[in-house]
Amino acid sequence: MELADYNLVFNSLSFAIATFGAGTVFFFAQRSQVAPAYKTALTLSGLVCLIAFYHYLRMFDSFNHAYVLSNGVVETTGAAFNDAYRYVDWLLTVPLLLLELVLVMRLSKEETYSKGTKLAFAAALMVALGYPGEISGDVGTRWMWWILAMIPFLYIVKDLVSGLGASISKQPKAVQGLVSNARTLTILSWTFYPIVFILPMLGIGGLVAGEVNAAVQVGYTIADIVAKAMFGVMIYMIAQRKSDAGA
Amino acid sequence: MELADYNLVFNSLSFAIATFGAGTVFFFAQRSQVAPAYKTALTLSGLVCLIAFYHYLRMFDSFNHAYVLSNGVVETTGAAFNDAYRYVDWLLTVPLLLLELVLVMRLSKEETYSKGTKLAFAAALMVALGYPGEISGDVGTRWMWWILAMIPFLYIVKDLVSGLGASISKQPKAVQGLVSNARTLTILSWTFYPIVFILPMLGIGGLVAGEVNAAVQVGYTIADIVAKAMFGVMIYMIAQRKSDAGA
Repeated sequence: MELADYNLVFNSLSFAIATFGAGTVFFFAQRSQVAPAYKTALTLSGLVCLIAFYHYLRMFDSFNHAYVLSNGVVETTGAAFNDAYRYVDWLLTVPLLLLELVLVMRLSKEETYSKGTKLAFAAALMVALGYPGEISGDVGTRWMWWILAMIPFLYIVKDLVSGLGASISKQPKAVQGLVSNARTLTILSWTFYPIVFILPMLGIGGLVAGEVNAAVQVGYTIADIVAKAMFGVMIYMIAQRKSDAGA
Repeated sequence: MELADYNLVFNSLSFAIATFGAGTVFFFAQRSQVAPAYKTALTLSGLVCLIAFYHYLRMFDSFNHAYVLSNGVVETTGAAFNDAYRYVDWLLTVPLLLLELVLVMRLSKEETYSKGTKLAFAAALMVALGYPGEISGDVGTRWMWWILAMIPFLYIVKDLVSGLGASISKQPKAVQGLVSNARTLTILSWTFYPIVFILPMLGIGGLVAGEVNAAVQVGYTIADIVAKAMFGVMIYMIAQRKSDAGA
């Protein structure tokens, strides 16, 4: 690993720890500012950041056990960087992110339950299908799992576009734009993940199973910050505006 | 221990830490969303997750002291993985889980007390009888304690099916299905434990006292997540629906 890559991964992991720690406190503190109907969405935003905070602490630790910087030279220690932390994190947080979006729309109880269950299940399936590809050093194997994971991914996108589309038009005028933006942010930031996944298959950053690819690590970290923390702030703004409007 | 088994145990223990940490915060945060009659049930859900969070942190630590991964090879250090953490955890959490279910049903004060005491005592007895078998490397000894622990286990199942059955029909219509599902989830997830217990007796994953059996560790971890965190979410949904209905 090059020194520049080492520094980039090291500092972006630490940046994520700070962001998600702050996000956790923000969402729990601001939970008191929204109407009761939206408190659960804020709780979930806080939990997503808390879970990410935990996993970035672990990843930072794992990275520092796998690589040591000595006299300007990056050395491997023999310990492996544990890539699984990201997938374990996503298995928990990605369903919660979709639930945040469904909850803040305040659909009927039945619709919330059925839509929430379907989307959360598809999200967990998507993450589980991506993992065998991520830990593989073989391009063909990576493509196969990538394609399989894209099936639930496209299902979710389709449901967000068409299914939630109808519900957005029923939202109060003051938040229709914000809800629509939150949906767009979800789709765009989520699209970032499968792109980062294929970077090593395109020859960017190298592909050796068990070795850290700096482009992938920095890419996933940026995607996480957008999809979790920034998305959570949008959910909070929607919840607050709807609370003010008494909706 | 094989590398794949090591990774599976390592990552599932970390997954449990994240789940129970998030669960603890969720139940205490959402406690404000239910009527006073149900706050104790939410407190117990939060405590169950907090106790599990503590024990999984300890188990993760114990596992990392017993095994070390170096250059892709798993090595034993001579330190033993402490299996007792699971039993100490269950001794506290299993009675609390039954109390959650009894409390959320909001029976009469007398019935809550007598049912709660009986079920909690049987649960503690069940866990205490399982432990001598768990730490034994002898198949005959394991079967003996397994059979003894199954006596309070079957008593609890019988009481949940017949005793609580009558009370479920007295619940508000809107939650009868949910309460019945929570009872089914309890019975199914609890049945998972005695099955995981006998895996090594059936030759799955090996049976050497003091050595980690990956199938057993992952099995118990999945069972814990379903029986504690998922069950807690169902209790929360029942409590919230009953609060909304003023029941």
